[in-house]
Amino acid sequence: MTSDTERCARALLTRAVEPGDKRVAQLVASIGAEATAERLRIGDPRVEQVERYRDRIERADAHADLARVESVGGRLVVPGDLEWPTQLDDLGLMAPLALWVRGVADLRLTALRSVSVVGARAATPYGERIASIFASDLAAAGWAVVSGGAFGIDAQAHLGALAARGMTIAVLACGVDVAYPPRHDSLFARIAADGLLVSEVPPGSAPHRTRFLVRNRVIAALTRGTVVVEAAIRSGSLSTAHDAEKLGRPVLVVPGPVDSMMSAGVHRELRRGALAVTSAAEIIEAVGGLGVDLAPMPSAPVLPRDGLDLLSARVLDSLPVRGAVTVESVARDAGLSPAETAAALGLLELGGFARSGPEGWRLVRQRGVPR
Amino acid sequence: MTSDTERCARALLTRAVEPGDKRVAQLVASIGAEATAERLRIGDPRVEQVERYRDRIERADAHADLARVESVGGRLVVPGDLEWPTQLDDLGLMAPLALWVRGVADLRLTALRSVSVVGARAATPYGERIASIFASDLAAAGWAVVSGGAFGIDAQAHLGALAARGMTIAVLACGVDVAYPPRHDSLFARIAADGLLVSEVPPGSAPHRTRFLVRNRVIAALTRGTVVVEAAIRSGSLSTAHDAEKLGRPVLVVPGPVDSMMSAGVHRELRRGALAVTSAAEIIEAVGGLGVDLAPMPSAPVLPRDGLDLLSARVLDSLPVRGAVTVESVARDAGLSPAETAAALGLLELGGFARSGPEGWRLVRQRGVPR
Repeated sequence: MTSDTERCARALLTRAVEPGDKRVAQLVASIGAEATAERLRIGDPRVEQVERYRDRIERADAHADLARVESVGGRLVVPGDLEWPTQLDDLGLMAPLALWVRGVADLRLTALRSVSVVGARAATPYGERIASIFASDLAAAGWAVVSGGAFGIDAQAHLGALAARGMTIAVLACGVDVAYPPRHDSLFARIAADGLLVSEVPPGSAPHRTRFLVRNRVIAALTRGTVVVEAAIRSGSLSTAHDAEKLGRPVLVVPGPVDSMMSAGVHRELRRGALAVTSAAEIIEAVGGLGVDLAPMPSAPVLPRDGLDLLSARVLDSLPVRGAVTVESVARDAGLSPAETAAALGLLELGGFARSGPEGWRLVRQRGVPR
Repeated sequence: MTSDTERCARALLTRAVEPGDKRVAQLVASIGAEATAERLRIGDPRVEQVERYRDRIERADAHADLARVESVGGRLVVPGDLEWPTQLDDLGLMAPLALWVRGVADLRLTALRSVSVVGARAATPYGERIASIFASDLAAAGWAVVSGGAFGIDAQAHLGALAARGMTIAVLACGVDVAYPPRHDSLFARIAADGLLVSEVPPGSAPHRTRFLVRNRVIAALTRGTVVVEAAIRSGSLSTAHDAEKLGRPVLVVPGPVDSMMSAGVHRELRRGALAVTSAAEIIEAVGGLGVDLAPMPSAPVLPRDGLDLLSARVLDSLPVRGAVTVESVARDAGLSPAETAAALGLLELGGFARSGPEGWRLVRQRGVPR
């Protein structure tokens, strides 16, 4: 278990240090969070660029932040806690120092079987529809859907999972009590009630552009794989895909129309080696356990004539759609001997494909099946 | 050069033998077409299933067929002719015995730099649009577009190439003087005038379903690669792709909406290892010479702020959209020391991103560029 002072120090550091600061992470790894915070506070010259942190750490109040997150039903989760998602350790020095979490579910258990579904904010109706359907199917299959809480694909991913009464996690670039974008306040309230809101930055923090990019590594590391639904060539969601790739997690992409700008980034990833997925089942197959979670191969219903050998199929093709014909005429048309043709016609009659009568052989039309 | 009797015998065999008959091909390879035709005519018992061929060969009239193809401006092309596309030899015993050709262009030269563009008959407007655009761009780049003359993708591929005043080849499952489907008679007339109509079966022959499938190997073998634009799970155009794969020719597929039935077959090929292409340039890169014909990497215009280092970007993000702020306030927001911040602001001012005044620092909005 992590001591209360260490926990408080980590809370303090999330206020004083920007996410992804490797220098501070290195220090925390070697001397602990409490000693690190102290060095930053006193402006210890052994810490490179120590001036950078002093003003923020002087103003930081960990107890106030902890009280604030509690007031919205949240908590701080730090490494060593049972709820800490240990897969984040794959990030090494880029691992979060702590996570501010809001929601009743257990973060570690929820993230164990999770997939991130991310994509463009300026998504098309196609992308939004697919994000919602895939997320809903993933949630119904017991997978948590992780995304970034933004407009477009992110929102549809969260909503799809919620609609299936499944689990969803929004990893935010702002505080877990901040609605950014503001129009998502009711979405975040729903996620806080039925899923989890997670952030590296303390309550009340505003999002910065750089925080969005740094945040993406948490989405990638938390999950078993990342699905990009739509992304323009210049899209932040591709950074999540690249983070997943660096972590050795599968990068999955959803193909779309090649003349859609919002699929251009996705198709570039596809050509770089990402795996195309066309259903939640295929996503689960890619991120799930080996040998379990296999997606069914897409297939069409088998038509009766598929069972025919090539020779019988040729004879069948030589029967006219209307009228009756002789064996010889069928044989000539099919390019087969009369004996072969007669034998094939006999088989076709048994299979219900052809019928013989006084005037010769006729085709039996299959109901609802093109010839 | 091939002798006239051998040429005549090959013409005869295209009438008497179904395309893709390996037994007859083997015989032709060992004793020549003339001797093969003679053995079939006399019902030589050394030929297995010889009865199969007798009726058709008795009725065949090579001279009449040759006269008939000439009457529509056509000719017979056989192995050994200068016009024979030798890449068809890759088919081994499945190579055509001869090709009936209509049109003024040279088949061999035209097919040297060619790509097949194939797909579903019941194509969607999306697939038809892409087939037409890609074919047109391929033709404009000097590539011949080969397809099967069917409705849907095939028709749009031919039309796209014709629209760009480029070359197109329709490989038919019926005679080169037969309009199948009948509504394509004017399309075939245009192809005969500006491109090439090609068939393994003699003039006047009707198409059979089995002939369509066997025909597909010619499309695959004639070209440097096969592009499937749209295909349902059960689609004949996938057989062309599989033929191309067996021949070691690139199989290229055009992604589409994952909820479109007409892209389901394409996406299955994609997941099986086919390469996704989103433009004619990417097709040419895949089928063209190594190191030449490279497609440009899709990219977005570089924004000025992309040139900023991470530290300057953080400082830039901390400048409010409106109003002026102090260095200290920016430093606190960015999580940087005042000295670092002041230095970054100086650089940002030089770059035209920020401006200092008596009240403090201000953001300079970039025209037409999101912050």
